[in-house]
This record gives sequence, C-alpha cells and structure tokens, in this order.
Amino acid sequence: MDDATGHIDGLWAVIPAGGAGTRLWPMSRRTSPKFLHDLTGSGQSLLRETWDRLSPLVGDRMLVVTGAAHEDAVRAQLPMLGRDAVVGEPSPRDSMPAIGLAAAILERRDPEALLGSFAADHVVTDRAAFRRAVEQAVVLARGGELVTIGIEPTHPSTGFGYIRLGDPLGVDGAEHGRRVREFVEKPDADTARTYVDSGEYRWNAGMFVVGATTLLELLAEGHPEMVLALRTVAAEPHRMRELWPSITKIAIDHAVAEPAAAAGRVAVVPASIGWDDVGDFAALGGLVPDHPEHPGLRLIGDPADVLALDATGLVATSGRTVALIGVHDLVVVDTQDAVLITTPERAQDVKKVVEQLTKAGRTDLT
Amino acid sequence: MDDATGHIDGLWAVIPAGGAGTRLWPMSRRTSPKFLHDLTGSGQSLLRETWDRLSPLVGDRMLVVTGAAHEDAVRAQLPMLGRDAVVGEPSPRDSMPAIGLAAAILERRDPEALLGSFAADHVVTDRAAFRRAVEQAVVLARGGELVTIGIEPTHPSTGFGYIRLGDPLGVDGAEHGRRVREFVEKPDADTARTYVDSGEYRWNAGMFVVGATTLLELLAEGHPEMVLALRTVAAEPHRMRELWPSITKIAIDHAVAEPAAAAGRVAVVPASIGWDDVGDFAALGGLVPDHPEHPGLRLIGDPADVLALDATGLVATSGRTVALIGVHDLVVVDTQDAVLITTPERAQDVKKVVEQLTKAGRTDLT
Repeated sequence: MDDATGHIDGLWAVIPAGGAGTRLWPMSRRTSPKFLHDLTGSGQSLLRETWDRLSPLVGDRMLVVTGAAHEDAVRAQLPMLGRDAVVGEPSPRDSMPAIGLAAAILERRDPEALLGSFAADHVVTDRAAFRRAVEQAVVLARGGELVTIGIEPTHPSTGFGYIRLGDPLGVDGAEHGRRVREFVEKPDADTARTYVDSGEYRWNAGMFVVGATTLLELLAEGHPEMVLALRTVAAEPHRMRELWPSITKIAIDHAVAEPAAAAGRVAVVPASIGWDDVGDFAALGGLVPDHPEHPGLRLIGDPADVLALDATGLVATSGRTVALIGVHDLVVVDTQDAVLITTPERAQDVKKVVEQLTKAGRTDLT
Repeated sequence: MDDATGHIDGLWAVIPAGGAGTRLWPMSRRTSPKFLHDLTGSGQSLLRETWDRLSPLVGDRMLVVTGAAHEDAVRAQLPMLGRDAVVGEPSPRDSMPAIGLAAAILERRDPEALLGSFAADHVVTDRAAFRRAVEQAVVLARGGELVTIGIEPTHPSTGFGYIRLGDPLGVDGAEHGRRVREFVEKPDADTARTYVDSGEYRWNAGMFVVGATTLLELLAEGHPEMVLALRTVAAEPHRMRELWPSITKIAIDHAVAEPAAAAGRVAVVPASIGWDDVGDFAALGGLVPDHPEHPGLRLIGDPADVLALDATGLVATSGRTVALIGVHDLVVVDTQDAVLITTPERAQDVKKVVEQLTKAGRTDLT
C-alpha cells in the first residue's frame, strides 16, 4: 500500500491542535497551549514531534486545525507546511467540528481521501509500532469502517476512557483488527482495575482513521445541519466567520464514535505504541529525563537553573534559579509570572487553580 | 535614672548591622542583607523595628555600625539619624571591631558613656520587658560590670549559645542580676535539653550593656593593639581605610565576654522578652502571621499573590503568583531571580545553597 516514499497511499493526517491544557498550568496557557511547548525536554514542541511522527506516513498530506489565535504560532513551528495546511477556527467548538471541517476540506481535494486524526499534544514513543497500527487501520478504513487505535493499558488509569474489544474481524492486512463493542467513560479506580485485569479493554487515545466522506456520512445521521455547514465552509472559506458560531460544540466521541459503536460499525486496532496524552504533571513526570547530576529529579529546562540538595520529583524551570532542599516527590513549575508547587497525587487539581484565576479575572495568568 | 523624656540617662544604643543572613537566602543577600528587610510582615524592616524599640530608651543617642556598602540603605531607612550616627566599616571584621569602634567613638563624646549593643536583625516582641531588663543592666554596668541579657529559653534550641547563671548579685535596682558562670557554645539536642531542664541556663542573644571605656579596657587585656587602632580611628576617622584591614576579625564573645566570664567579671540580667534572632526560615515561620484566607499558611508578602488549595507552611512572595496544592509544612520563598523550596527541618541547610552558588561564582544570586 505504501508508495516509493514510504507514505501510506491516500492517507491524510489531520492534527487537531486545541485545548488549553489547564492541568499543565502555568506552563500551558490559553495563549500558549500545551502543544506549542517542549514539555518532555525532547528539544521540540509536542506539535513538532507530532509532525515528525506523521510526515513519514503522509508526506505533506497534512492538515492542522487550530484556534485562529494560534495559527501564526503553528505556522512558525511548522514552516514546511503549505498555506492551505493550517485551518484556523474562529472559536473552539470541541473535536467534532474541527475534524469534521478537515474531512469536508479533504473530500473536496480527494473524494477517496482517508483521514487519520491524531492530537497535536500527545506522545508516542514507539513510532514503528504506531506505523504498523495505522497501516492496519487504513486497510479497515478503506473497507468503510470508522477505525480507532486502542492502546494497551500499562496501568489501571482513571484518566482515560476505555474501548471494549469485540470479535476479531479477520481482514487481510489488518490482523489485529477487532470490532468495538463500546466506548466507556473514564472509570473509577475499581472499575479501571477490572477493565485492565479482563484483558478486554484498551485505552481510548482519540485516534481515528476513516474515509473523509464516511465520517461526514456517519455525522450526518445525528447532525445533518453540521455536515451542511462544514461542507459549505469547505467550499466557501469566506463564510467561516458567519457559520462557525452556530456549529454545535461536541466531541467526536459523542457525535459519531459512540453511536456508531453501538450500531456495531466501529473497528479497533489494538496496539502498544508508548502513548501518553501528557494530561497532567503526574503523566509528564514519567516522560522527562532525570537531571544529569540529580537522579530522581526529573527536569524540564536548563540543568544549570537547578540547585538541589537531597531532592526528588519533577521540576520545570524557565531561567530563574530553583533551589530544592530536602523535598521529595514534589512537582515544581517555575515560569516568568507564576510558580506552582504540588504533588503528583494532586496533579489533576491544577485545573482548579486555573478555574480560580479565571473566576478572579486574572486573564494575564491563564 | 530616666530623664523627663523616659530616656535612660547616659545610655547609648549601638546597633551592629552586619551579617548576610545566608540562611534566609534568597530573601537576604550580601547586597541586601536581612536587617534591611521586612521579614516578619510588620510593615517595617528589622532595622527600623530595632530603632523603634531603642529610641524610647535612648532618644537620638544611637550609633549604627554597618558595612560601607549598606551605609546609604541604612540612612535611607533611618533618615532621622544624624550624619555622625552611622559608621561604615570598609570590610566586615565580625562583632568586636564593630562594637569596639563604637565604644571608642562614644568615650570621646562622653567619658561616662554606657553602651548597649543590640543587633539590627533580631526580633523582640515584649518591649516593656525589654526595657525593664535594660534598665537593670544599666544599673549593673554603672557599677563597672560587663552585662549581658540572658533570654529565658522557650525550647531546647541547638541554634543559640547559652549562658550559665551564677549567684544573685543583690544590687539595688537590678533585682534579677546574677553573676555569669560561663558562656557555652551551641549545644547538641541532648545537651540543650539538659540545659533547659536544669533552669540554670539562658540563651545568649548577644546583647551587652557596658561602659564604653570599661569595654575597651577589657578588650585591651587580650587585644591591646586593637584598642589602640580603634581609638586612633575614632580620633582620626580619615585613617579608617588605612588601619581597618589590619584589625583582627573576632566576635565580642571570644574577644571579651568569655574570658571576662571565666574571670568572674560578667553579669547577666535574665529576662523573658519575646526574643528571636530570626536565624532561619524555621524561626521566621513562627514570627509571621497567617494568610488571611488560609489558616496554617504563614505569609510574607501580598495575600493576593498566593493561590492555595489545602496547603500549609511558610510562603514568601514578591509579586509573582505562587500556587500551592496539597503541600504541607513547606518553606517556599519566591524572589525576582530565585525560588527556594525546603522544609523547616532543613532550614539550616539553606546556607549550603549559598555556599554552592558562591563557589560557582554566581555573585548575581548571593
């Protein structure tokens, strides 16, 4: 299926680059969200890492959908993208309108287009395994399926939704393909444990591979007016500002994936690809390297910024000196105008601080 | 003994304003030491609080001895002082040369002068008790004694030296006066416990009341060349830069108090005056008020700078937002160019960070 370049024939990568990443405040802000940052200390932003991971699969068949406010930053980080490869949304409408608009644009460019949608702010450490999973998903998508990639759980996470596996599909070139029985919401700890122990569940990473037109047809079953609006905007981009505000704010999971799964029309390729959504500082702590001189102290930033005596945890610096003495398993995030100190256990509560700041009108800090 | 103003007749207050306060880094710096800061959130610097405490006792009979580098800052904080009331040392030589120079200056102004030496960076919360102790010390000093004020211990501190009490002196107007048996160095925890349990020991707060000439005579017994140099500088101030560098660097305790005590020539007025040397962040944590909205969170700075969810400890801010989530009993000190995170238990180790920075040539941070 691959052409001479190694690209997967007919596949377009769609990269929804949205979300403020409030649980990663104060690194991630509305004005400078998570995907624009080098969170893992790789030397590249998550967005640029996403491009690196996808370009061997699709070449320049790529479409980034982002907030209009971030269009310039996206273009600056991905200068190799053509003018038409970045679409700016006037306002955030959640994932369905973003991916649906990409589908409407792509079916005009190529009626046979398959789209693979992969978030701009996730991490995938095993690119070879990722490619093998996408290749199988493409085979299934060509057969008209809505296909998701189901991540093998490494622990009973309560932070992700799960996919319940159904029967094997037995499709040539997609050996691991299974039917999806259902998508389930983020479980409590006990439920997560039973999911993982059963072996029947995979993490929902929000990765979808599907024909552009297939996706719009599935969407039209529940939201025909949205499909009409999206196709109109794709045909007449100048009408974006007029039509966008009226489009329903909804996630692709609720708009399409869950109802289609209930109807037995979703496939999954289970895979183990080193995926993480980098959802909070607890997750991030597992992804960044140790400080070169202080084992146990995970570092984002310049090692010279850190002075540590008997300290462990995660520390993110941004030019100022951070001195840690006799403190363990803390999360310390230092930025120009705010510093956060918490623990991995409370990492989910960081969003509450952002809520407080928002309520207090501190738009300068969010 | 008081004149109509309430001042104690013939008493001069000498305020040694030195020491970098390295255990209070990054608030306290070489270039901006502890005594210049409002550490306790009282709205005034420790130096200005010291002036407030002493001026009812001595009026304008006051002499501040400080590093030449801090002379301007001292004058700015105490604009009520006359030109001759601030003496700048070209280099730090510890407490004996500083207080000895003050004595040499004062005996020229008033051969009968008594001096009371009180550090610029300590806290005294009970001013009435302080006054009563000083009044008794003055009575004893008039009789030719070197007098110290011995602080009743509130806990078995290992951070202070101790004074071992001897027999009552039975002097009219100095009912609590006792002979000093010996000064002892900072003890270990077990020894400190036996000291406090015995009731025979008081904390050495480094407060001395003594005739200016008496002090110089005591000093001359061990360091006659120093007395000569100090009297020369007092008579010919332009020779300061020439003579100062050759003066021995030594604390008043070692130069005068300990040998005089061994000879049975030191008196002590035991007192309970709410004293603290604010030596580290553990001590400071006990002196500052709670954040108005977060009981258990001691605050130095603007309450609006702090966002706390379930947090206790000591936090010092300087304009940036500090967010604390689910962390307890931490010490967090935020400054323009450095942030410190430690615990009260490790408060003494803060000076090690300053040593590391000094070794690394980071004079910008120390």
